[in-house]
Amino acid sequence: MNIKEITARAKAAARLTRNLSIETRNGVLMQFACNLRSAEQKIIAANQIDLENARLNGMKTSFLDRLTLTASSIEAIATGVEQTASLPDPLHMVLEDRILTSGVHLKKTSTAIGVIGIIFESRPNVCADCAALTFKSGNACILKGGKDSYHSCVAITEAMHDALRKYGVSKDAVILLEHPDHAETQAWISDRNSMDLLIPRGSSRLIRSVVDNARVPVIETGAGICHVYVDETADLQMAVNIVINAKCQRPSVCNAMETLLIQKCTAERFLSLLAPALKEHGVQVFADEYACSIIPSFEKGSEENWNTEYNDLIMNIVTVEGVREAVNHIENHGTHHSESIVSSDENAVSYFMNNVDSACIYHNVSTRFTDGFEFGLGAEIGISTQKMHARGPMGLQALTTVTYHLDGNGECCK
Amino acid sequence: MNIKEITARAKAAARLTRNLSIETRNGVLMQFACNLRSAEQKIIAANQIDLENARLNGMKTSFLDRLTLTASSIEAIATGVEQTASLPDPLHMVLEDRILTSGVHLKKTSTAIGVIGIIFESRPNVCADCAALTFKSGNACILKGGKDSYHSCVAITEAMHDALRKYGVSKDAVILLEHPDHAETQAWISDRNSMDLLIPRGSSRLIRSVVDNARVPVIETGAGICHVYVDETADLQMAVNIVINAKCQRPSVCNAMETLLIQKCTAERFLSLLAPALKEHGVQVFADEYACSIIPSFEKGSEENWNTEYNDLIMNIVTVEGVREAVNHIENHGTHHSESIVSSDENAVSYFMNNVDSACIYHNVSTRFTDGFEFGLGAEIGISTQKMHARGPMGLQALTTVTYHLDGNGECCK
Repeated sequence: MNIKEITARAKAAARLTRNLSIETRNGVLMQFACNLRSAEQKIIAANQIDLENARLNGMKTSFLDRLTLTASSIEAIATGVEQTASLPDPLHMVLEDRILTSGVHLKKTSTAIGVIGIIFESRPNVCADCAALTFKSGNACILKGGKDSYHSCVAITEAMHDALRKYGVSKDAVILLEHPDHAETQAWISDRNSMDLLIPRGSSRLIRSVVDNARVPVIETGAGICHVYVDETADLQMAVNIVINAKCQRPSVCNAMETLLIQKCTAERFLSLLAPALKEHGVQVFADEYACSIIPSFEKGSEENWNTEYNDLIMNIVTVEGVREAVNHIENHGTHHSESIVSSDENAVSYFMNNVDSACIYHNVSTRFTDGFEFGLGAEIGISTQKMHARGPMGLQALTTVTYHLDGNGECCK
Repeated sequence: MNIKEITARAKAAARLTRNLSIETRNGVLMQFACNLRSAEQKIIAANQIDLENARLNGMKTSFLDRLTLTASSIEAIATGVEQTASLPDPLHMVLEDRILTSGVHLKKTSTAIGVIGIIFESRPNVCADCAALTFKSGNACILKGGKDSYHSCVAITEAMHDALRKYGVSKDAVILLEHPDHAETQAWISDRNSMDLLIPRGSSRLIRSVVDNARVPVIETGAGICHVYVDETADLQMAVNIVINAKCQRPSVCNAMETLLIQKCTAERFLSLLAPALKEHGVQVFADEYACSIIPSFEKGSEENWNTEYNDLIMNIVTVEGVREAVNHIENHGTHHSESIVSSDENAVSYFMNNVDSACIYHNVSTRFTDGFEFGLGAEIGISTQKMHARGPMGLQALTTVTYHLDGNGECCK
């Protein structure tokens, strides 16, 4: 792999993709979706090679599950690509249009970022999603997937390349890296000339490793230790529904709740309602001493539990004096992702809303709503847990930057 | 220096500053300006110590110039702080307000970032500017200035601390680091828990070193190899004015032009007008062979020249076939800062506008307009040359992030 040459190809492609009309960009995506469907057998055959290798490498069932492509998952991928095509154009949006005191006419518009690198795990669907989102937003992308998904990603990328070719667009708009070793990857993500933005998609371990090693701008996504706080004024049946939804509806995702905070004075009443529901859903609970004293089947938890993203049917329950202690707990153990308060006390709600420092702060709503589709943004490239550039669900707009165009008649600075 | 303890103090302060009313934030700044004026003698005395040390350390005159504070420069600093106070509040701006399909009420508002680190050189005015801008935007800041300006910065910071005290705000809102050594600085900028954003302000060498060594999010600012391209359809007298303004009006700043690109067929005509003006302004010129053949007093330049930010009365002149070659030169040698085309050919202008990949792209205007005040943003914390978060002049808005507040009535995800 010659990363300098690949980078140069991607840059050259990015200079073209940023100026493609929305009709061409959408046309390519519709063709991509069509190609995915017609290449179904080929993609499944490539996927079988990956699965076979992964089995030989002793990968776990959950890993194999995420790697597996079927007719229906390929259909879902194609539909996702079509949905991306149907989203509004994120480019050429006029964000400001005004005449400066100097008489110069300023226009601020959204423009493509350039070359976006994406590092993801062995989930071939991510390959198609990212190719579609970066291309729709006028960018070129360099994709590095988990090595166990390589053949599947090659087959998916070929479907995209064929679509690009049909519209006369360079296939360098979407480049899939072929097995870079650790040193090559490190050289790639250390070189500030190699790309404009790097997005890691996957487990918090993957993200941490990218953040620690990259020298190019990175958007940190994904890690979610989300909290729900229930106070004495809460509608307790509503609180049970929210907690069960936030924990159990899809425990593997980042917007699922990991820790429930309960105002001490209401813990006994609330837990008598909640504990049977948790049991019914098979949720394992680590709790503080007071909560354990109320429900003896809870296991004793510790700071380490409060700092853990389970992504599983496991949760923490911690009792607190009130909203201030709840906010402090979130500040000390959260990941600035999504937190919810269930309460009918205006003062408590207002304190929570103004003092929690997270991307999404909910009142009487499940944390599971932190999602591109729920927010009306369409498919998302990730959920940003940092504060720069984009925060929360990142739709197409997060894959653009801005350019100032200034028009004048010989103006000079005084 | 115990950086963990300093970080904890700044974080605690940031939780308070983000909720201060605009009246309190502006009141503190007006008091800060007032204190700067009344502490004039004290600040000058502290500055004398710094100057004496710097002289003993053998620093150059230009360095001592930038370090020197006088009654009038302190007045200018105080006026700058007052101007920051008079700017609109960048917080609590409602950026989106809508009801999601689920019925949940979403509000996206601008909020403070948290703790902002700023590393700057021995220019005490930067200390006051940064304290004012970060505080106005509801953030806490940790300032690390060049060690030769330490006593001056202490005196300025004291004026801010006194203002904070008068309004009952923790002085940890503005922390000046006391001589951290290299290892301590490295530990500080490597720890992703230490701050939310780091902004280096100063020479490209300082910025490069921060970007290479930091593990926290950094906004890259400042480096400006800016270009002006003049084609055969240009109003040549306008082009002369723009080139002289862009190079000579303030050559030390990042938005000054370093390289002039001229369409070959117009080079002879244009240079016969321009060369006398450049000579009159004492500009040294490095040029390509063709330009040298027209004006023999030009020195022969090379790729190294085309890649140099002179920040001085020195410039490059390169002749090109047309707008495509001009854009390619900018792509290969520019820093994505500010470029201008002087032309009356609509096609050339449109190609330039759509294909140059810089923060600010001008038509018939000097590059010197890339500036917070000229853009109507007020004082700027820097000019971003990267594409994430903020691009071009960064005003107060660039020191904020967004928060989604979502209000509902027990909504759960389906």
